[in-house]
Amino acid sequence: MSLLVTGSIGIDTIEAPAGKRPDVIGGSAVYFSFAASFFTRVRLVGAVGEDCPPSLLRVFDGRDVDTAGLEIRKGSRTFRWHGSYVKDLNEAVTVKVDLNVLAERAPAIPPAFRDSSHVFLANTHPVLQQEMLASLSSPQLVVADTMNLWINNEGKELCKLLTKIHGLVLNDGEARMLTGRKNLVTAARDVLKLGPKFVVIKKGEHGCLLCSGEDLFVLPAYPTEQVFDPTGAGDSFAGGMMGYLATQQEPTPAALRRALAYGTVVATFTISDFSLAGLQNATRQQIDQRLAEFQRAMSF
Amino acid sequence: MSLLVTGSIGIDTIEAPAGKRPDVIGGSAVYFSFAASFFTRVRLVGAVGEDCPPSLLRVFDGRDVDTAGLEIRKGSRTFRWHGSYVKDLNEAVTVKVDLNVLAERAPAIPPAFRDSSHVFLANTHPVLQQEMLASLSSPQLVVADTMNLWINNEGKELCKLLTKIHGLVLNDGEARMLTGRKNLVTAARDVLKLGPKFVVIKKGEHGCLLCSGEDLFVLPAYPTEQVFDPTGAGDSFAGGMMGYLATQQEPTPAALRRALAYGTVVATFTISDFSLAGLQNATRQQIDQRLAEFQRAMSF
Repeated sequence: MSLLVTGSIGIDTIEAPAGKRPDVIGGSAVYFSFAASFFTRVRLVGAVGEDCPPSLLRVFDGRDVDTAGLEIRKGSRTFRWHGSYVKDLNEAVTVKVDLNVLAERAPAIPPAFRDSSHVFLANTHPVLQQEMLASLSSPQLVVADTMNLWINNEGKELCKLLTKIHGLVLNDGEARMLTGRKNLVTAARDVLKLGPKFVVIKKGEHGCLLCSGEDLFVLPAYPTEQVFDPTGAGDSFAGGMMGYLATQQEPTPAALRRALAYGTVVATFTISDFSLAGLQNATRQQIDQRLAEFQRAMSF
Repeated sequence: MSLLVTGSIGIDTIEAPAGKRPDVIGGSAVYFSFAASFFTRVRLVGAVGEDCPPSLLRVFDGRDVDTAGLEIRKGSRTFRWHGSYVKDLNEAVTVKVDLNVLAERAPAIPPAFRDSSHVFLANTHPVLQQEMLASLSSPQLVVADTMNLWINNEGKELCKLLTKIHGLVLNDGEARMLTGRKNLVTAARDVLKLGPKFVVIKKGEHGCLLCSGEDLFVLPAYPTEQVFDPTGAGDSFAGGMMGYLATQQEPTPAALRRALAYGTVVATFTISDFSLAGLQNATRQQIDQRLAEFQRAMSF
């Protein structure tokens, strides 16, 4: 099994009630890779500009992340995002965003990565997601993320993508926007009609749900008081989920359920500190301990 | 064990996407009693005006509800509420409310009810809640509900009440308002500092959490697509919870957890039809089946 992720690598500036962190590493592929690397080796595909300080990329040193697909693009600038959670820890306010390299062509997938069995297409333009998917030989499990921008403006391309993937991960607002349904179970069932075999709807501080033709699974959020920086929570969730799935023979209902629980738990480490610090200080043993605590916290 | 509830009995007019139902029976004590009567005999205390059609009160015929505490007050009019969920099934818009008899003195608790072991003080003015509590001899478990109006305007009396009860049930918005905390786990812990041994925070379509000195328990909502009329969901939740607790020797953490699960499941029957119809058509066997389904829907 081999897990590939394509997504953003960026430089974030974060403001939260607990303080401000300028110029820290971020991006969907970074959080995903870190989270997934607790479970399996991750092949990262993404691009930064030549302005990206090498010190930031050293964040992958010692992690089980293959950065052969990390392109440092000459003449380009790195994606930057400045967000604030000062008003509400549950909702990021974008202070400033510079797409930079993300607005250019997709990064190339190295030939050695084309046989990847598990693929996560982090949120980006659905045309780029399809292009990257097309350059893979025969992935066993492809899961994608998306966002309101593409649902609103690129519905046709998004629908094409949805017929080519196995799973879709999105948040509650996006699921409602995509299907026009308020009830999330109904929305999930409608997503399945668009192509995916399963859909995961993330509800932030309220947990998540999984719907497939054969299963309906609901999870509360892990009850935590330690929320310092929610940046990357969704990508860490996806990383924990896909990392675990890449260790399983088949994405059975039982494997998918456990994958969502791992995703939930891994994300609690992310939000417990700024940027990657929470994940950097976590161990697989702690993750497994927290998974057991989570199970105890919801058993009756 | 004997379970007493004091609360409202009213005539509701409900508008929802599925239609309009004028002049149906409603009120916190009514939903609570119906829900709890699946588990144990319920002593109902409440008042209606002389305008209340006897046909409405016949709703208790054949249920395990002792209506000796139901006062038909001469010269008074019944509480009326007209609410709409047409815009959003998750949020009631009050079209019109006539407090009528609810704005008068509290109903008397019959002497035969004063030895009740389990008591639920449905939402009303905290001074009335304290008065009713004072007329009981030595209840073993007292749980109260409250609302934003009393939190904002009667904080001092509410705090007095909180030192006299064992459990508080409130929704997420109310918990945040009462404590000034956004994080619900932190809010729950702060509620405990005000007196109660445990607090239950209801999050509507997102489930609930229980916090006590010795336990922290989280539950997702039961995943249902059948929401016709959410009126009474919270009172049915409390009814299922207290009904189950009244069958248990002690409110141990395990008993409280199971009680919340029963409350969650009973409320799904309430919202599946207008007014009391969902509860009227349910059986204890169906409730237990749905509890088992709920457990399966969240196991991993």
